[in-house]
Amino acid sequence: MKEYNPVTAEVIDALKAVVGDKYVKTDADVLDVYKSDESLAPSFWKTPEVVVLPANTQEVSEIMKIANRFDVPVTPRSAGTSVSCGAVPAYKGIVLLMERMNHIIELNEDGMYMTVEAGVRTIDIQNAAHEKGLLYAGDPCSSDSCLIGGNLATNAGGNKAVRYGTTRHQVYSIEAVLPTGKIVNLGATLKKCSTGFCLDQLIIGSEGTLGIITKATLKLVPLPPYKLDVLAVFTDLAKATALVPKLIKAGLNPTSVEFMDNNFVRSASDYSDLKLPHYEDGCYDIISIETFNEDELDDKMEKLAAVCEECGATDIVEADDRVWKVRRNCLESTRVFSKVATSEDLVVPVTKIADCIQTLVKESQNYDFRVFCLAHAGDGNLHFQILKCDMSDEDWEKQLKEFRAKAYKYVYGLGGRLSGEHGIGLKRLKYMEEYTDPAELDLMKTIKRAVDPKWILNPGKVIEEN
Amino acid sequence: MKEYNPVTAEVIDALKAVVGDKYVKTDADVLDVYKSDESLAPSFWKTPEVVVLPANTQEVSEIMKIANRFDVPVTPRSAGTSVSCGAVPAYKGIVLLMERMNHIIELNEDGMYMTVEAGVRTIDIQNAAHEKGLLYAGDPCSSDSCLIGGNLATNAGGNKAVRYGTTRHQVYSIEAVLPTGKIVNLGATLKKCSTGFCLDQLIIGSEGTLGIITKATLKLVPLPPYKLDVLAVFTDLAKATALVPKLIKAGLNPTSVEFMDNNFVRSASDYSDLKLPHYEDGCYDIISIETFNEDELDDKMEKLAAVCEECGATDIVEADDRVWKVRRNCLESTRVFSKVATSEDLVVPVTKIADCIQTLVKESQNYDFRVFCLAHAGDGNLHFQILKCDMSDEDWEKQLKEFRAKAYKYVYGLGGRLSGEHGIGLKRLKYMEEYTDPAELDLMKTIKRAVDPKWILNPGKVIEEN
Repeated sequence: MKEYNPVTAEVIDALKAVVGDKYVKTDADVLDVYKSDESLAPSFWKTPEVVVLPANTQEVSEIMKIANRFDVPVTPRSAGTSVSCGAVPAYKGIVLLMERMNHIIELNEDGMYMTVEAGVRTIDIQNAAHEKGLLYAGDPCSSDSCLIGGNLATNAGGNKAVRYGTTRHQVYSIEAVLPTGKIVNLGATLKKCSTGFCLDQLIIGSEGTLGIITKATLKLVPLPPYKLDVLAVFTDLAKATALVPKLIKAGLNPTSVEFMDNNFVRSASDYSDLKLPHYEDGCYDIISIETFNEDELDDKMEKLAAVCEECGATDIVEADDRVWKVRRNCLESTRVFSKVATSEDLVVPVTKIADCIQTLVKESQNYDFRVFCLAHAGDGNLHFQILKCDMSDEDWEKQLKEFRAKAYKYVYGLGGRLSGEHGIGLKRLKYMEEYTDPAELDLMKTIKRAVDPKWILNPGKVIEEN
Repeated sequence: MKEYNPVTAEVIDALKAVVGDKYVKTDADVLDVYKSDESLAPSFWKTPEVVVLPANTQEVSEIMKIANRFDVPVTPRSAGTSVSCGAVPAYKGIVLLMERMNHIIELNEDGMYMTVEAGVRTIDIQNAAHEKGLLYAGDPCSSDSCLIGGNLATNAGGNKAVRYGTTRHQVYSIEAVLPTGKIVNLGATLKKCSTGFCLDQLIIGSEGTLGIITKATLKLVPLPPYKLDVLAVFTDLAKATALVPKLIKAGLNPTSVEFMDNNFVRSASDYSDLKLPHYEDGCYDIISIETFNEDELDDKMEKLAAVCEECGATDIVEADDRVWKVRRNCLESTRVFSKVATSEDLVVPVTKIADCIQTLVKESQNYDFRVFCLAHAGDGNLHFQILKCDMSDEDWEKQLKEFRAKAYKYVYGLGGRLSGEHGIGLKRLKYMEEYTDPAELDLMKTIKRAVDPKWILNPGKVIEEN
């Protein structure tokens, strides 16, 4: 394991010379804020030595040069909404905050693209597009608080990925600062290109380990005018999950297919002070369908109802705002049960999602923690919220380890992966090393070493230096 | 410039030990076949020292290990349909033919994917999908002769890229042999993934410089049952090209939008022995629209006709097989005018395609060569076929250089790039070095050096060692 230098007075002075005194923070109470993110996993938290807020790309570049000169690690941070300890400074050092770089630079209606700085909130991008009758299709659940830079770094997924793909599919080009401080522009606002290596996609999703994304040009698409959300209620978990691959195969091209188990239906309804159908015994599938043609919507709704009935749905109703409120409050709602929790973000082929949910829910019943399950089921992405409740620390760690060993082995056996949208971060680092094919891991490390010879940018994330 | 070792008897013996005597070719007449590809640019051609035909991934790996041991370059080759000298062995050495690895391994209807070896013909993949009511959406114009490995290496585009994207968008995962001989599996059959770096997309489109793709799992999509192709004829180039961005903005989501100038209309009609409307003075836009709903097709056809009329179309007729035959014969048809020719593959933002075609056609009239223009206009990809005809070699080189300098500068000014789908190959290497942002070029070379320390795999393509 590499050792880094501490942040000395000389480093602080160098940083102040770049961004100005006001934007270099060393007060203990400020540093304390940036030791964690939204992952409820205190054992991973680390307090940074300094927090710095650059105003522009040039300043980000200068900060990286200082970090290289003094051999001090840099952890880039967006809104800190990571649940994978992606924003935690694993080796202390410098936390680099992107929040001042928050300008929408251009929204081009004819060209259907938007160029933004990395610190723009995702919801502001969504709203700006919407005002012009266009859609920015990236839509992570945290869109009202997260920043686009974080979405790009983790290849965030969210509610619309079934139809539109994940964040990496919404991008024409990026500007990034490499670990050495060099500024690069990668990709282009083109529908096709065979001019050199696909480096934009390499940086996107690398969780800030290969470069700090400072700007991006995002694709906008026409906003479908017709939309209907359906709640299909099942009193049987097996039936509720079996619906998903059937929906996809029926050619309905849904925008989203969300699944909530009864634990979540109850806790999120209570938290939201709402009572929805089959509160006591229901599992929910929430399906959104959008079209450009009214007849097509009617057609698809008929087909959808038929598939739901065939699969044994108890109730098929329009999903109004109350349903979405309950869905949004899922994670929040579990905090009353347990302050310590961990979320899994497993992803499997969509054809395997029903088996996977059923098998893992059954397996989870062998342990003392509580497991709540929701899924972006239409894209095979499964969230288990595992609640420590009143378990001892020792039992919690031991049983979690056992459960994960079984779950991960099973999921990789299905052709799945550790993370569908939250990323590896610091939290899944050791599992990444354990479950990834050695040749693939080795290629990642070869590239990391070439691009970041001092392993100075976001160390301790995704892959381990060795 | 690096110097490589010659292929000695020892190298030949080592190769024979891997693939068997029968699959190592050193006869002059065989070697002669593999000096060129479909680029009509003899000045770039080089005769290999040996041609080797591996049967499987393990053999490809062993060949790369031999190449490293003896410091001999390897040029992987699919069907040799490159028009960018992508298959030419720039430094001689070993040509590695993928054609024996030609098996469809699995077609999974429920999972909607197909796993194939790299030597399968693209048309066989299209047909296999079609038989199951599914679509493999990659569709380069050479699909009846090219192999999927070549499509993946160059990120081939073709006729359906407007709606479905290019080859890289049709891929779940690849198996590849790295320059060192290591075998890697990259990507997964998943709708979303945030588990490590996006290495599959890095290898795809790297034109066989970062790895030899040996297998791929390809996405299949539902086959739209309703389809109509329309030929819109214009007697004015400006009007014909102005249609394109308007079509895209109208939300018609066409599968393809192809443009042919009158030079191509005439030559390809003559070649095909067909007389189509406005043979004498027409430019053609051929538009394909596909839907899952009959009403939707009717709606879109009405809108399409309205947009074409508004743009001043002289004729709007159904495009039958004759039209597609003429389109397919375009390139072939120019060979009667000139044995030496070069094709440009420029790509610009779709909003700029009309200006770009008009400006460059006008510019081309200042030179002695003949220029024929066709375009995958819906994705901004412009093919100029430049015919030497009876120019002297000296004039040809001089004027071509002048024209390219103006055209490339103009295209990069519009945010465009050198190649939309043909790749850089050996033919555009020096222009790649000249027009690419130095920081981007440097990052490509850093990665190449890390992955291929001996610069042994496909040297002389895409980027130059320096």
